[in-house]
Amino acid sequence: MSSKLFAVIAGAGTGTGRAAALRFSKAYPVVLMARKPGSYQDTVSEINQAGGKAVGISADVTDTQSMGHAFDAIKKELPDFKLAAAVYNVASGYMIKPFLELKPEDLDSSLSGSARGLFNFAQKTIPLLLDAVPESEHSPTLLITGATASLRGSAKFGALAAGMFARRGLAQSLAREFHPQGVHIAHSIIDGLIDVPRTKAYATNDGVEDGKLKPEAIAESYWYLHTQPRSAFTQELDLRPYVERF
Amino acid sequence: MSSKLFAVIAGAGTGTGRAAALRFSKAYPVVLMARKPGSYQDTVSEINQAGGKAVGISADVTDTQSMGHAFDAIKKELPDFKLAAAVYNVASGYMIKPFLELKPEDLDSSLSGSARGLFNFAQKTIPLLLDAVPESEHSPTLLITGATASLRGSAKFGALAAGMFARRGLAQSLAREFHPQGVHIAHSIIDGLIDVPRTKAYATNDGVEDGKLKPEAIAESYWYLHTQPRSAFTQELDLRPYVERF
Amino acid sequence: MSSKLFAVIAGAGTGTGRAAALRFSKAYPVVLMARKPGSYQDTVSEINQAGGKAVGISADVTDTQSMGHAFDAIKKELPDFKLAAAVYNVASGYMIKPFLELKPEDLDSSLSGSARGLFNFAQKTIPLLLDAVPESEHSPTLLITGATASLRGSAKFGALAAGMFARRGLAQSLAREFHPQGVHIAHSIIDGLIDVPRTKAYATNDGVEDGKLKPEAIAESYWYLHTQPRSAFTQELDLRPYVERF
Amino acid sequence: MSSKLFAVIAGAGTGTGRAAALRFSKAYPVVLMARKPGSYQDTVSEINQAGGKAVGISADVTDTQSMGHAFDAIKKELPDFKLAAAVYNVASGYMIKPFLELKPEDLDSSLSGSARGLFNFAQKTIPLLLDAVPESEHSPTLLITGATASLRGSAKFGALAAGMFARRGLAQSLAREFHPQGVHIAHSIIDGLIDVPRTKAYATNDGVEDGKLKPEAIAESYWYLHTQPRSAFTQELDLRPYVERF
Repeated sequence: MSSKLFAVIAGAGTGTGRAAALRFSKAYPVVLMARKPGSYQDTVSEINQAGGKAVGISADVTDTQSMGHAFDAIKKELPDFKLAAAVYNVASGYMIKPFLELKPEDLDSSLSGSARGLFNFAQKTIPLLLDAVPESEHSPTLLITGATASLRGSAKFGALAAGMFARRGLAQSLAREFHPQGVHIAHSIIDGLIDVPRTKAYATNDGVEDGKLKPEAIAESYWYLHTQPRSAFTQELDLRPYVERF
Repeated sequence: MSSKLFAVIAGAGTGTGRAAALRFSKAYPVVLMARKPGSYQDTVSEINQAGGKAVGISADVTDTQSMGHAFDAIKKELPDFKLAAAVYNVASGYMIKPFLELKPEDLDSSLSGSARGLFNFAQKTIPLLLDAVPESEHSPTLLITGATASLRGSAKFGALAAGMFARRGLAQSLAREFHPQGVHIAHSIIDGLIDVPRTKAYATNDGVEDGKLKPEAIAESYWYLHTQPRSAFTQELDLRPYVERF
Repeated sequence: MSSKLFAVIAGAGTGTGRAAALRFSKAYPVVLMARKPGSYQDTVSEINQAGGKAVGISADVTDTQSMGHAFDAIKKELPDFKLAAAVYNVASGYMIKPFLELKPEDLDSSLSGSARGLFNFAQKTIPLLLDAVPESEHSPTLLITGATASLRGSAKFGALAAGMFARRGLAQSLAREFHPQGVHIAHSIIDGLIDVPRTKAYATNDGVEDGKLKPEAIAESYWYLHTQPRSAFTQELDLRPYVERF
Repeated sequence: MSSKLFAVIAGAGTGTGRAAALRFSKAYPVVLMARKPGSYQDTVSEINQAGGKAVGISADVTDTQSMGHAFDAIKKELPDFKLAAAVYNVASGYMIKPFLELKPEDLDSSLSGSARGLFNFAQKTIPLLLDAVPESEHSPTLLITGATASLRGSAKFGALAAGMFARRGLAQSLAREFHPQGVHIAHSIIDGLIDVPRTKAYATNDGVEDGKLKPEAIAESYWYLHTQPRSAFTQELDLRPYVERF
C-alpha cells in the first residue's frame, strides 16, 4: 500500500528530536528511539493522545546488536510500512576541556555518538529508504543534525569537533552515493544554543528573548528539507538565531 | 496598515526570477524588475489575470540612477506598502573562455551584474526591509541567487567566478550586519542547470527527465527561507538535482 | 639564455611588496611596480646598492593602457629576460563602514584593486610565465596576496570582502587552468595585521611583541611557494601570527 | 643544553613518513615510529650510515599503553633532548566501498588511525613540544598529514572521510589552543597520489612522468612549515601535482 509510510527519529529526547517527532507525526506514524524510555515516553503519549501514532523504542545507536533488535521491533510494530524519513539527532556530549585534560574515552565517546551511531543508523535506514523511493510522495530522506563544531575546531573543543567533523564527512559521502538513487541526505549546521530547559541558564547574545534556536523551527526546516523535490535537493544548510555572531 | 506588504524581484525574466514572482504573488503584491519589459510582461499579466497583483518596472540594477527612478516608481505604485521580501536574481553572463581570451569588459560585466547590481539593490531595499521589521509577519528577507561558481573558480570560469565570489562575500557581510537588526539575508547556491527553455538542449546527468533544477522548486525554497522565524535563520544552502555530481 | 630570469612585484610599496622585492632580488633582477615612484624608490636603491638589480616602474594595474606601457618598458629594460615570478600584492583599501554608508565608488575601488588589477596583471604576466616554463629552474609562479576578507564577509566589511572574494575566485580559476601548463598560481590568506609603520598604533592580541605578521616572513613563504616542484604545488595557504584568534 | 633537539615521525614507513625522517635528520636526531620494525629499519640504517642519527621504535599509535612504552623508550634513548618536531603521518586505510557493504570495523579502523592515533600522539608530544618552546630555534611543530578526503566526502569514501574529517577537526582545535603557547600545528592536504611503489600501477593525469606527489617534496614542505617564525604560522595548506584535477 503506497500510503503506508513512517518516520524514525534517533535521539528523540528533548529539543530537536522531540520537535521533529511532533512535526513528522502530523504526516506519518513516528518511531522515537532513545537509550532510555524516559527520554521519549512523554512525547509518545502526547502524539498518541493528539490522535497521531507514535511508538517508542529503547536502543543504543552505537551498538549494532541493539540497532538490530530495534529495527526488528519496528518491523513488527509497523509491518507494512515503508520508511519516508529518518532523523539522526544523537548528541555526542558537549565537552569543553583543555586538550591535555581530555581522556581517550572522551574522544571515543564523541566519535561513537557522532560517527559510529550515524553509521549504524544509516546502515539500517538507507535500505528502507531506498525501498520507499517508488512509493513515497516526498523523496525518502535521511536528516542529520550538525553543529558549529561540524565546521570549526575551536580551542578546547577537540573531542567534539573530531566527532562532528566525522559525522559531516560521512553525511557528504552518503549524499553523493544515494542522491542519484533517489534518497535525500541532508545535513543541518545548528549554529547556536537550542532553547531547551538545559540551556535556560545560558545568556543569549544581546540578551534577547528569541536568541536561542527554537526546536520547532529546526523541526520545521527538517520537514521542509524532506519535502524538497529531487530536482532541487539541499545537502547542507545552516540555522542560527538572528543575534548569533558567526 | 500592518498588512500592506509587497515583494520585489530583480532579474524577473525567465526561470528563477519568474518562478519567485509567481510564488511570492500568492502572498504579496509583487514588483518585477528587469532591464526590458519583454522580460517581465507575460508574468505580470499572468499574475494579474490570476487575481494577484503584479507591477513591472524596467530598470538596470547596475545603474544607481536607474535604481533611484525604479524605487521612486515603486513608491508611487504602492504608496503605503512595506517591503517584506526582495529577491536578487540577476544573471551575470555565463561565460566559459580561456583566461587569455577574456577581455577586461568580460570581467567588468560579471562584476557589474554579480556584485555592483546586488550592492545597488541592497542599498535600496535594506532600508525598506528594516522599516518593515516591526510589521512583517515573516522577517523581512533579502534572497540572493548564487551558483556553483560562487564556491569554486573552475578553469575558464574566471570572470564568472570573480563576480559570483564577490556576490557571496557581500551577501555574508550583509547577513552579519543586518541579521541582528531583524532582516534576514540568505544566499542560495544553485548548483546545476536550471530547467528553462535556454537549457533545453543541454543533457542532464544520467539522462534523466528531472535532472535539471525546476525554477518552481528554487522559488519554493526562497519562500521557505522567507518564512523562517528569526530564531533560526539560514544564511546559506545549496540546491542541486539529485543526479548532479558534486 | 636560460639563466636570464626576472621577477615583477605589483604593489611594491611598503610591507609585503617591499619584502618580496628584497627576497626575490637575492635570486633575480626585480621590477617594482607601484602607482607612484615614492612607493618603490627607496627599495630600488637599497637593492641596487646591495649589489642586486632592481628597476622601478610607475603603473596603475587597474588601467590596461598603463599596464601595456609598463610591460613595454620592462621589455626594454630586460630585453632577454624571462619571467620567473610575478607577485600581485595590490591593496584594495581597508574600509570598515556600515553598509548603508558605503558609496558605489567604495565598492568599485575595492573591485578594481582586488579583481580588475589582478585580471590585468595576470593577462600581462601569464603569457610571460608560460614562456619561461621550459627554462626556469623553479616553476614560473604567480603569487597572489589574500586576506581574512577573502574567506569571510564580516559585518561592515562588505566592499572589501566583495573585492577579496573576487580575487580569490579568479586566483582559483587561474590555478585550475594554468597548473597543467606548468605555471604555478598560489594564493596566500594573510590573516592578521602586518607589522608596518601604518599599523604601529594597533594593539596586538595578548599584547605580544611579535603579534603582527612580519613582512619578511610573508616574503619567505612566497619564495618557498615559488620553489615548490610541480609534483607538489600549493594553491592556497594561510599565514597568521601565533596569537591571532581565528 | 639548548641545542639538543630531536624529531619524531609516526607512520615512518614508506612515502611521506620516510621522506620526512630523511629531511628532518639533516637537522635533528630522528625517531621513526611504526607498528613493525620492517617499516623503518632500512630508513634508520640509511640515516645512521649517512652520519645522521636515527632510532626506530615499534609502537601502535592507536594504543595508549603502546604509546606510553614508546615515549618511555624515547626518553631513555635521548635523555637530554627536547622535541622540536613531531610528524603524524599514519595512514588509515584507503578503502573504496559502497556504503552498504562497509562493516562497522571499517569505520572503526579509519577513526582509529585517523583520529584516535593523532589524539594519542598529540597527548604525548604536545607536552614535549611546549617544553621545547624556550629553546627551539624554530617553533616546535606538530605536522599532520591530511588528504583529499579531509575536505570532501566522496561517494563510497564514507569510512575514510569520517576519519580524515575527524583528524582535521582535531588538528584545527589543537592549533587554536596551542598556537598562542608557541607550538605550531599544521595540517597538509595531500591532494593526489603519492609516488611510492604501491601506486606505481596507477596512471597519472595526462600520463605525465611527474603527475604524482614526490614524498621528498611533501617532506620539504613539512620542513618549511617547521621553520616558519611564529609571526606567520600556516595552519593549513594543500599540495597537489600540477596535472591534478581539483
